[in-house]
Amino acid sequence: MAQRPRDTSGALTAPGGRTDTTTDPVGAPPPQARRAPDGGGRPPHGTGSAADVLARYLHQQATEFLRGLRLHGDSGHGSGTAAEEAAEAVRLLRGAARRIAGALQVFRPLTEVPWTDQFRSELGWLTETLGREYACAARLARLRGALHRLSGAAEAGSAAAPAVGAARAGALLERQLTLARTRAHSAALQALGSARFHAVADAVAVLSTDPPLDSAAHDLRAPEALPLLAEQSHRLLLEAVDALPLAAAGLPYNAEALSHGLADAGVPAAESRQDAPWHQVRLLVRLRRYAQEVLDEQHQTEVEPGLTIRLLSAGQALDRHRDAAEAAAYAAAAARTPRIAPATAYALGVLHADQRYEVEAARFAFGRVWQRMGVPSR
Amino acid sequence: MAQRPRDTSGALTAPGGRTDTTTDPVGAPPPQARRAPDGGGRPPHGTGSAADVLARYLHQQATEFLRGLRLHGDSGHGSGTAAEEAAEAVRLLRGAARRIAGALQVFRPLTEVPWTDQFRSELGWLTETLGREYACAARLARLRGALHRLSGAAEAGSAAAPAVGAARAGALLERQLTLARTRAHSAALQALGSARFHAVADAVAVLSTDPPLDSAAHDLRAPEALPLLAEQSHRLLLEAVDALPLAAAGLPYNAEALSHGLADAGVPAAESRQDAPWHQVRLLVRLRRYAQEVLDEQHQTEVEPGLTIRLLSAGQALDRHRDAAEAAAYAAAAARTPRIAPATAYALGVLHADQRYEVEAARFAFGRVWQRMGVPSR
Repeated sequence: MAQRPRDTSGALTAPGGRTDTTTDPVGAPPPQARRAPDGGGRPPHGTGSAADVLARYLHQQATEFLRGLRLHGDSGHGSGTAAEEAAEAVRLLRGAARRIAGALQVFRPLTEVPWTDQFRSELGWLTETLGREYACAARLARLRGALHRLSGAAEAGSAAAPAVGAARAGALLERQLTLARTRAHSAALQALGSARFHAVADAVAVLSTDPPLDSAAHDLRAPEALPLLAEQSHRLLLEAVDALPLAAAGLPYNAEALSHGLADAGVPAAESRQDAPWHQVRLLVRLRRYAQEVLDEQHQTEVEPGLTIRLLSAGQALDRHRDAAEAAAYAAAAARTPRIAPATAYALGVLHADQRYEVEAARFAFGRVWQRMGVPSR
Repeated sequence: MAQRPRDTSGALTAPGGRTDTTTDPVGAPPPQARRAPDGGGRPPHGTGSAADVLARYLHQQATEFLRGLRLHGDSGHGSGTAAEEAAEAVRLLRGAARRIAGALQVFRPLTEVPWTDQFRSELGWLTETLGREYACAARLARLRGALHRLSGAAEAGSAAAPAVGAARAGALLERQLTLARTRAHSAALQALGSARFHAVADAVAVLSTDPPLDSAAHDLRAPEALPLLAEQSHRLLLEAVDALPLAAAGLPYNAEALSHGLADAGVPAAESRQDAPWHQVRLLVRLRRYAQEVLDEQHQTEVEPGLTIRLLSAGQALDRHRDAAEAAAYAAAAARTPRIAPATAYALGVLHADQRYEVEAARFAFGRVWQRMGVPSR
């Protein structure tokens, strides 16, 4: 994601002067006060142009985004409920931002391209910035759970305390990830107060009334244009899956995922190289799912519920793949902390290997789901 | 295995004064010089009593044992060929000793029980003592191979050197296991020169001519007695397999085998408790296979080649289970070596987890083989 300095929020200006570029400084009223009134410019349902369908979808997502923004403004800081509300707000904001960016990517030829490309990269920045805090929390929960399981504590009737090494490794991870989480929280708060964020929020608000669609989109009928572009994203997905080593991954206990667990210097490098195509497929599965949501919007119903469910399952397997891969890399990195005890390092080694086998298990699970999809050639 | 002092070799004396109890001191002629001439007392083929069949089987195994003994005497010490010959000799000795003990166990009611029980325990001592050297070598080869694989070195075109931690862990394991192997080698040589061993060898030689069978065995026809006792050993096997958590083991990536990888203090204790029933089944599968060999001897052909092959496959999966479990325990123990570097401990942690997943993979493989066996109720 390209980093843009605060004062370039004007870059989000649409070619037609879509948004107000003179965003207020940090002391400005909260973002939700600026948005257009809910449903004010909602396009009529049932009309048949590609632009109509996309506008409806973008409008819905913009509404979700602004709901998230309002919830975040209400959540304040302090009580447990507030923390839950803030988490829900971030979930809404990220989900809507990802869907808006996804729809603009899949149906890119129907959009005002230079502006939407720039906008998508800003949405990516936002999703990433807001997600980091929760990623740290999820990673800690995953590693803590794995340590718990590896200590035999998950077993019924077991009162096993973790061994010294496991306890120390847990404390080390807790310390490092809590610090990372706090930093990510501050970064997210800072981002939410920035002119850059206000520009994004303004642009999302404008999506509701004035979607950035090309004039061609207004001339094309939805059934002519939308399935074709969704099909294109499906093809990209199929090609990416074809490049995966699915035959090997389909054999249980193939021990592929850990094959670089102790490689020289490049422990993370070698493993990320191996994981990258799977991460790529994860993004394409998600994109295909959002494309399907637009088609569902076109038909005002779930067109292919079976496909949707399988895309969801495939996505879940690949989410688990990503989470385990990142947790494994984190355990390996933690083991390079200076002056740790050998017992701590040993526990982190076990943890690393455990998470790499989770990576392998997730690939196996994805292969199963994909097989059930029967690889529709659409 | 009960440890017996050297001077009690007389305890091997059969009730009927079967063996010469006054075994020579260490300076005596090599054991093979004492055995009965090959085939000298071989019972006639084709006769139909249970004793006849068992005697034929025991005679064959005794012949193999004595062949191993001769080969070992010839192998000397020094050249590479000699080492190979010594290994082959030990393989012959152990295989024959296991089969003799197995047949005497399965068909125990047909044998002269007090003497054969004692004899079986002596055979067990011998198998164990002779095998330790080769177990050390096999364990080192397994751990070295795993480190190699985990360093990504197995990949085509990869010139990856192992990371510092992996290299140090490899050196540590190499040092410890080479020392253990040398000790085991000395212990085996000492055992082979002991009065205790000479007594066992004498008793094996006598098996060829005068098998320790009960008079009942001479009265019973083979088809009446032998299948019944083989069936009993089959039932023991079925019961033991029934007690295994096969449903869980049949789900790939169930992560069961590593569930105590970091348990308090009792890393090995908790894991061996989990592994024990599988080790028990390994022994029962082997016993059942030897029982089948006796039935094959009865019919002078392979009665059920399908069963034999499946018992072999099941045994191989459980051998791998045992080897991986022992290698994992060894890696964990090595990590408790004082003053090792954290990077070394980390690599040993990865190695431990890797081998525990091998344990899990072996259980999965056994489950598959067992399923194919269709659990015959015989």
